[in-house]
Amino acid sequence: MNEKLRLLASMMPENADAALIISNTNRRYFTGFVSSLGYLLLTRNEAFLLTDSRYFEAAQKQTSGCEVLLLSSLSKTLGELIKSKNIKNVMLEASAFTLNEANKVISIADENGAKCQTTGELDDLISEQRIIKTSDEIDKIILAQRITENALKETLPLIKEGVCERDLALELEYKMRKAGADGISFDLIAIAGEKTSMPHGVPGDNCVKPGDFITFDIGALCGGYHSDMTRTYAYGFVSDKQKRVYQIVYDAQKLGLEAVKSGVACKEVDSAARDYIYHAGFEGYFGHSTGHGVGLDIHEMPAVSPKSETVLQSGMVVTVEPGIYLPGEFGVRIEDTVVVSTDGCINLSTLPKELIIL
Amino acid sequence: MNEKLRLLASMMPENADAALIISNTNRRYFTGFVSSLGYLLLTRNEAFLLTDSRYFEAAQKQTSGCEVLLLSSLSKTLGELIKSKNIKNVMLEASAFTLNEANKVISIADENGAKCQTTGELDDLISEQRIIKTSDEIDKIILAQRITENALKETLPLIKEGVCERDLALELEYKMRKAGADGISFDLIAIAGEKTSMPHGVPGDNCVKPGDFITFDIGALCGGYHSDMTRTYAYGFVSDKQKRVYQIVYDAQKLGLEAVKSGVACKEVDSAARDYIYHAGFEGYFGHSTGHGVGLDIHEMPAVSPKSETVLQSGMVVTVEPGIYLPGEFGVRIEDTVVVSTDGCINLSTLPKELIIL
Repeated sequence: MNEKLRLLASMMPENADAALIISNTNRRYFTGFVSSLGYLLLTRNEAFLLTDSRYFEAAQKQTSGCEVLLLSSLSKTLGELIKSKNIKNVMLEASAFTLNEANKVISIADENGAKCQTTGELDDLISEQRIIKTSDEIDKIILAQRITENALKETLPLIKEGVCERDLALELEYKMRKAGADGISFDLIAIAGEKTSMPHGVPGDNCVKPGDFITFDIGALCGGYHSDMTRTYAYGFVSDKQKRVYQIVYDAQKLGLEAVKSGVACKEVDSAARDYIYHAGFEGYFGHSTGHGVGLDIHEMPAVSPKSETVLQSGMVVTVEPGIYLPGEFGVRIEDTVVVSTDGCINLSTLPKELIIL
Repeated sequence: MNEKLRLLASMMPENADAALIISNTNRRYFTGFVSSLGYLLLTRNEAFLLTDSRYFEAAQKQTSGCEVLLLSSLSKTLGELIKSKNIKNVMLEASAFTLNEANKVISIADENGAKCQTTGELDDLISEQRIIKTSDEIDKIILAQRITENALKETLPLIKEGVCERDLALELEYKMRKAGADGISFDLIAIAGEKTSMPHGVPGDNCVKPGDFITFDIGALCGGYHSDMTRTYAYGFVSDKQKRVYQIVYDAQKLGLEAVKSGVACKEVDSAARDYIYHAGFEGYFGHSTGHGVGLDIHEMPAVSPKSETVLQSGMVVTVEPGIYLPGEFGVRIEDTVVVSTDGCINLSTLPKELIIL
């Protein structure tokens, strides 16, 4: 078994002797192999990747640390494995199995004398393991972040009066893909004017006009890993209020970043940014969390939220993204993705954050 | 309730008094409202859409036929509904609920005196209902198909020696999105040369060279509905074998199309195409089904496969896509999407299918 599989096997509770993983991300995490179908069965000392004829040959070549088995029928391949390895209790990945898939596996297990655990304990173990990134994982996030920043730099000159949000989002995606990204991290946000007051506004036919803020919340996907960055720009001119609100978010984000350090609880990072915004008179206008973990999923552990007791450790990757949203007026958000270190953090975002009027 | 909801309510088995739907596609199908989160609870005579503050206002405006409730906490909003409507047996959408989500709902139901059915019976009822498309649904598929064809027509001139698969796929997607598609139907396939022998090859850095077949399996997404079309072109020149295989697939596809008619079993359509290919000496080189249903999902009921007993009815939308795949050499697939009618079918694809050498 490889190191990641060994670690998970060592964390299995006493009342389980196997784990069954089916999500694409977690199969990829533990085996390095990318496929749209497969079952990863882990016992205390062995691992098996069951996949179909489309992937079998490639999986044998590219997977290390587990035996690759050709999936003829699930009931046959999985059933025989459960029997021959004398498995009695299988933990299922409860955040990934649908009821239909679980029903099938539970009945196969039952026929072969095993019980399934469906409570999500396995998912918690995996989240805990994935929360600390290896340098190889961080390299992929950095690559995704570089591609994201280059795409944004190349897109800014296209911003003119009358260009619509939808086209800006599409250009960004096209440039990321052209630069080698596998895809985008999430539906890219490129919104202008009043719409910037919606934290998750969807780019549409709305056009840029002088006096608008334009918010880009964007990220690329490279080697399975996500990047995440938000910048808010002004077009033409800004009002005093826009300027003031921007500066408050800018300062709050700086305070959030300064709070990030191994040993600090996530909720302290959240409150570093949040308290500043609230004290500046904008309580009620910053409704979301200050940040979240980033990796194979765009949102993963840890939550950087008011209630999160999780203590930051070196190697965690989190966003810091406070904002102020004034309905009917405008919104501002600034977001960086950082790697937690013993004495602070390494900021993976390099684009300037001072207010830029395009 | 609207007509779709009423129909589903009337199909509910005796041992159930409610259905809980959570997939984005089925929520959209039954309410017309698009969101990334929501619970649609259907009783025998009422329907409720539970959604959060991001969507609540829009849902109230855009949803007809069901009452929109603000989801504060699931246990409160859903729990109270189960209690006040005296619900005792809720069918869950087993192909969409993850174990985690089901565990939550089962415990809420339990606290309020209701049991959940997790066997997938609800999913079957919904599939059965969705299998026949309304004219409004067909209009959306046609729009998606038009956008797909235009993108392909505009992309063909870019095919030159040295252009790589990945760039062709990206151009196609860009053109579809630019033309107003919400997205693509699936990861577009644009593969060349030997790779065309893989039915689901992934576009990569492989470049087009004279003598190649190039297979495009592509589709756009419009208003939630998918289109699906495959064309295989030659570049520069073709061998006699390529020509012969192309002609066999061309004829087999024609036979498949001619077999489509209301009242005919899907397996008969499959065998019309398959038998011709097998008799021409290519048994073992056409491994997939002849077709599948298309709608809110890219693959939905009915399967047009060797074992499918489903009888075609007017208003079903299916693909007809036989192929021949010769490992290490090349492959050919030709695919149209058609609407079943009483005396045959309406072909939604209009691009020529005769062998074109670019």
